[in-house]
Amino acid sequence: MPLTHLDEAGRPAMVDVSDKSVTKRTATAEARVVLGTEIMQALVAGDFATKKGSVTQTAIIAATMAVKQTWAVIPLCHPLPIQGCSVTVEAQDDRSMYISCTVTTEGKTGVEMEALHGASVAALTVYDMCKAMSHAICIEDLRLVRKRGGKSDFDGPAV
Amino acid sequence: MPLTHLDEAGRPAMVDVSDKSVTKRTATAEARVVLGTEIMQALVAGDFATKKGSVTQTAIIAATMAVKQTWAVIPLCHPLPIQGCSVTVEAQDDRSMYISCTVTTEGKTGVEMEALHGASVAALTVYDMCKAMSHAICIEDLRLVRKRGGKSDFDGPAV
Amino acid sequence: MPLTHLDEAGRPAMVDVSDKSVTKRTATAEARVVLGTEIMQALVAGDFATKKGSVTQTAIIAATMAVKQTWAVIPLCHPLPIQGCSVTVEAQDDRSMYISCTVTTEGKTGVEMEALHGASVAALTVYDMCKAMSHAICIEDLRLVRKRGGKSDFDGPAV
Amino acid sequence: MPLTHLDEAGRPAMVDVSDKSVTKRTATAEARVVLGTEIMQALVAGDFATKKGSVTQTAIIAATMAVKQTWAVIPLCHPLPIQGCSVTVEAQDDRSMYISCTVTTEGKTGVEMEALHGASVAALTVYDMCKAMSHAICIEDLRLVRKRGGKSDFDGPAV
Amino acid sequence: MPLTHLDEAGRPAMVDVSDKSVTKRTATAEARVVLGTEIMQALVAGDFATKKGSVTQTAIIAATMAVKQTWAVIPLCHPLPIQGCSVTVEAQDDRSMYISCTVTTEGKTGVEMEALHGASVAALTVYDMCKAMSHAICIEDLRLVRKRGGKSDFDGPAV
Amino acid sequence: MPLTHLDEAGRPAMVDVSDKSVTKRTATAEARVVLGTEIMQALVAGDFATKKGSVTQTAIIAATMAVKQTWAVIPLCHPLPIQGCSVTVEAQDDRSMYISCTVTTEGKTGVEMEALHGASVAALTVYDMCKAMSHAICIEDLRLVRKRGGKSDFDGPAV
Repeated sequence: MPLTHLDEAGRPAMVDVSDKSVTKRTATAEARVVLGTEIMQALVAGDFATKKGSVTQTAIIAATMAVKQTWAVIPLCHPLPIQGCSVTVEAQDDRSMYISCTVTTEGKTGVEMEALHGASVAALTVYDMCKAMSHAICIEDLRLVRKRGGKSDFDGPAV
Repeated sequence: MPLTHLDEAGRPAMVDVSDKSVTKRTATAEARVVLGTEIMQALVAGDFATKKGSVTQTAIIAATMAVKQTWAVIPLCHPLPIQGCSVTVEAQDDRSMYISCTVTTEGKTGVEMEALHGASVAALTVYDMCKAMSHAICIEDLRLVRKRGGKSDFDGPAV
Repeated sequence: MPLTHLDEAGRPAMVDVSDKSVTKRTATAEARVVLGTEIMQALVAGDFATKKGSVTQTAIIAATMAVKQTWAVIPLCHPLPIQGCSVTVEAQDDRSMYISCTVTTEGKTGVEMEALHGASVAALTVYDMCKAMSHAICIEDLRLVRKRGGKSDFDGPAV
Repeated sequence: MPLTHLDEAGRPAMVDVSDKSVTKRTATAEARVVLGTEIMQALVAGDFATKKGSVTQTAIIAATMAVKQTWAVIPLCHPLPIQGCSVTVEAQDDRSMYISCTVTTEGKTGVEMEALHGASVAALTVYDMCKAMSHAICIEDLRLVRKRGGKSDFDGPAV
Repeated sequence: MPLTHLDEAGRPAMVDVSDKSVTKRTATAEARVVLGTEIMQALVAGDFATKKGSVTQTAIIAATMAVKQTWAVIPLCHPLPIQGCSVTVEAQDDRSMYISCTVTTEGKTGVEMEALHGASVAALTVYDMCKAMSHAICIEDLRLVRKRGGKSDFDGPAV
Repeated sequence: MPLTHLDEAGRPAMVDVSDKSVTKRTATAEARVVLGTEIMQALVAGDFATKKGSVTQTAIIAATMAVKQTWAVIPLCHPLPIQGCSVTVEAQDDRSMYISCTVTTEGKTGVEMEALHGASVAALTVYDMCKAMSHAICIEDLRLVRKRGGKSDFDGPAV
């Protein structure tokens, strides 16, 4: 299958999707922010998830807003009217946060890039709010885990 | 060291940096896009790097524009007048692309988030341009590798 | 009726509207900018409404552009293809300007926030253009006055 | 004092501030969202301020991001490198939320519009998250309460 | 035919298109960047079109992203879900670059402004990348060459 | 002189200007919108310049806002804190509108692209507001007419 974003002369081009049909589409992406045990202990001590919620809630809001801007950031993405977006930011283990971002729309193209963009911005926002403690933070496993609608479904590796 | 983006009541707040001094700052972030051997062969067959350059050049432009918008995407980031940005997108091995993003400014805060944001958008753009072939693509090792200027320098793990 | 923008775990989330039906929707919001008699006399002396029109016309343009960006500003708003927007900025009495903003679309969600956002930005633009004379300006009564389409209609208090 | 945003021919124009000097500037604006007792009881019952924090925290994030975009929304505002921003969203009485937004920068122009814009967007975000319960919500008293730096200081009416 | 963007009181207003029907629409705009022979020789010597492609590819990406933002730039333009965009940037003769931008959508309004905006931004990007050599560059003949769909078709002058 | 926006490997890159000194800079660009006599008569009949001012004032506002966004539109442009912007939109003869856009800043890079971008958006806005009458409109002579500050001054051809 060819790289569809290059036209026959090798120029980047936004694929014409006007003849595709509108279907309901959902996509879920995930990412992991490896913060290390020291930062995770500080986050837990500050009760990030239940009492003040700031780190997680800031990341959720940032991701939701980023999902809507995906077409403005990724050059050849089509603008899509996002109809639903749900983001999870939670502790995965004693050194990592786990992020999941699910996006829904009805459209002619899928929302994989939107879900991935949302997950990446949630991860970066967690990074930004923790980096005063350490820069030895790494974002891993940013990938699609599930896609429904469109030409074909997709299921990522079982976690 | 506390989480500086939460004020004493646990509310998210943009740290007041008006009393910090302006210094020259640079930061370099990296990421890896694991595309798999099939996509990499197709990219190489299409001479992505030397003849048409579309995938790499589209990713470089997207990253450069994203670097400048970092403050608009990450909620508590300070706006900074970016003074230089250089992005590399190249084959790392037979299944991965390697991305590096270096940002320069003079300012009161560092450009780590800008470099990380640029690297992440370059990686997502490569993903977007290859996803017609497969969605089994994973972005790994998005992290800071070097930071100069400000309170302290940082050097990431030797690659 | 619950707060629909919080999911069952109390996290902010963009409500999934994909199963709602598309209907024609309009909303009108209003606001009042209390400038005081001195500024109003200066505005009238400068014939703001009929000859040069700058203050009113700048506010109308700013509001129209803001209406289209509402989804990018209010975190959990859905993007909507705005199909019509009409803004009025006029003297209400000897110390106030009156603003009205009507928005039309066909969509799955209403345009109340768009109308309110437009009215607020028109008011802020009037403020910005008058603040060299005084900062004792107050924006009052920013509210919805009429909504048609969707689950239920709404009519605000008679003015 | 003339309306500085109109040039001698009555055209809107961004005032040239290049000959002004850079000073530290802060501004605080406030607003009140009159939600009515029913919505306030629901918010309190959901513990909006201490446990889940969603309404307040979403409004704070939205306001912070809006502060940084003020120059892009208000046509004749100068771009300013915001150096600090702090937003409060809290219950004022049994039917209203009180919003306060303080902005800091060093620049050639003040940050009044930034503070007012932030307060307005916080208020609109609270509105958006509560409007499923009722549209009989009104935003009142959006005004400057304090300004330091620049040609003259300003103190609003004692609350 | 009246100027449709002014309402009966002479105020600017976004025309209400909610009663128009959705049809497939395409528009092509063109522009010429007159760079002079010296810059063109340098561009050719650097093999801008086949080997590195940077000038042309940067302009194509910038134009594609601008097409999607047209509604945010032109005050009274309606937001449209762009469904396809293709941009050509190539040498026209020994002193000029020729730009063509074709946009496709299904919508209630046409995409002429989108095509024109894309062509203008491609031209400005070429200018920006060449201006270190000379500022004696001129953008000419920015115009619509073809429009299909909507109330009437249009064909510009034969080139 | 080389094309400074390509690095030694031919990749697009934002030139590092951190070692350049800050100076006051101004630039003026111009453009001409050839509307034809029929549209110009309609504009004059509607008194576009003195009574309602809508076409010209809408174009001025659009240009001013575009000037501030230039760095977000032209990929390799540096963000600059615009300190002044003045736009003229007026009849040139019986078939053309003349546009002039002057931008001022203190910075490490010039504001030529800002002035050109502003002039282009003013021209496109005039086009947009007149296109209901005819699409046989052409934008001509978009160019720099004057630049002060930085490495060298520039004066365009006498008009």
